[in-house]
Amino acid sequence: MDSTIRVPVTRVGPTDREVVDDHIVGEAPIELRLGGTPIAVLMRTPGDEAELALGFALTEGIILRPSEIAAIRPVAGDDQGDRWGLELADGVTVDPEQFRRNLYTTSSCGVCGKASIDAVRVAAPPLPDGPVVDRQVLFSLPEQMRVRQSGFTLTGGIHAAAAFTPSGDLVALREDVGRHNAVDKLVGVLAANSWPLPEVVLLVSGRVSFEMVQKAAVAGISVVCGVSAASSLAIELGMELGATVVGFLRGEECNVYTGEHRIL
Amino acid sequence: MDSTIRVPVTRVGPTDREVVDDHIVGEAPIELRLGGTPIAVLMRTPGDEAELALGFALTEGIILRPSEIAAIRPVAGDDQGDRWGLELADGVTVDPEQFRRNLYTTSSCGVCGKASIDAVRVAAPPLPDGPVVDRQVLFSLPEQMRVRQSGFTLTGGIHAAAAFTPSGDLVALREDVGRHNAVDKLVGVLAANSWPLPEVVLLVSGRVSFEMVQKAAVAGISVVCGVSAASSLAIELGMELGATVVGFLRGEECNVYTGEHRIL
Repeated sequence: MDSTIRVPVTRVGPTDREVVDDHIVGEAPIELRLGGTPIAVLMRTPGDEAELALGFALTEGIILRPSEIAAIRPVAGDDQGDRWGLELADGVTVDPEQFRRNLYTTSSCGVCGKASIDAVRVAAPPLPDGPVVDRQVLFSLPEQMRVRQSGFTLTGGIHAAAAFTPSGDLVALREDVGRHNAVDKLVGVLAANSWPLPEVVLLVSGRVSFEMVQKAAVAGISVVCGVSAASSLAIELGMELGATVVGFLRGEECNVYTGEHRIL
Repeated sequence: MDSTIRVPVTRVGPTDREVVDDHIVGEAPIELRLGGTPIAVLMRTPGDEAELALGFALTEGIILRPSEIAAIRPVAGDDQGDRWGLELADGVTVDPEQFRRNLYTTSSCGVCGKASIDAVRVAAPPLPDGPVVDRQVLFSLPEQMRVRQSGFTLTGGIHAAAAFTPSGDLVALREDVGRHNAVDKLVGVLAANSWPLPEVVLLVSGRVSFEMVQKAAVAGISVVCGVSAASSLAIELGMELGATVVGFLRGEECNVYTGEHRIL
């Protein structure tokens, strides 16, 4: 399946209706396996499966670094390409039950915000003091992202996550029908090139929820920006970890919820 | 915790920065238990917990009707109100392993779109032929929803799901930081009043993904509209089940992806 698909759609207006060809975003489940054991099924947009698998394993704390993985490839005999396996490097062991529980509970090991935050604190490395980002650089990011959202331009319905250098140059951008998957694909792309990640600014096309800050922090990213709002637990997690959380980054304005010292 | 929270935020403009009070959306984990067994932890906006629990159990196919539940209440001793238990009615049994697997795999029992669709087809009742909705009624729904999204008005960052009669009267609306939770809370509210649900039109404030159509169909709702795009698997599921899937419902226009016979 492709990441975008052309389908006939009936466009209904005030008095007319016509059938036109339209682009919609592809969505299909993928099963991820670790050493042969299924660990998750995600609804994702087809494409960048290896990066998604690597990013997911990293941001969910299943592995601590890319070198713990020897290979990522489609499961033998799966013609659809919807089953992917991560093979652990020699000498690396992971307890499937432990992360199975994590996934099962939507990455929250506890049932109060405090417990969720504690769980991330254990998994996340100490965040760097930097980077420091000029506000004018921040303001330039959404437009830079927008013009490169090719899937969104076609379909109007796909999330994006992008990484920029502290001086505002795009490092990589990925799109996916799932907000979390877009971040995981992006982290996977970055992590395949260098680990720990270089100092980057993460921008997501939508809201900044708890899991966005969680995934960023576990990957070592200290500045998380969203075009839309941030949630209470996302802000709380950012405070606890010393991350910078920015919301409503639009035009020449933004809201800095925590970690203001990184904004010049 | 409240559904919206007031926090100080640094608003950064082109040359100025000022600290202002702002409203953000509340986000906190909730653990749902069935007969004492934890079945899910969801990140949700506090409020309407009983409705969320009931709606979730229904739309995930864990229970088949509200009467299978005798009571929904906070777990004894949980002062935070973040642990809620569903108690099964006398004589009702549910296999926790079965739905545990469902949740674990993000509601997909298989790893290809076909298997996911088959799984929903088993869980969903046959959809009614109706309702038939006039296009002018459809066009009126987003504005009706918008003016009642009190959480969104305050925070700019919370999803909504609303149910309308076929003639366009609002039946109920719920908001949540999680798209799925907003639908579950709405279904919970409706199901507590009557079951099977009356013929309603579902409108969600964002995109129509596979799980939106799934949850609607399992609850017996045949018309699903979104203000934004629909995904490929959502459309495919709608086709298979005979549901009506409408996207980009904005102004006096919309895209009907499938089930056009319900739009007048």
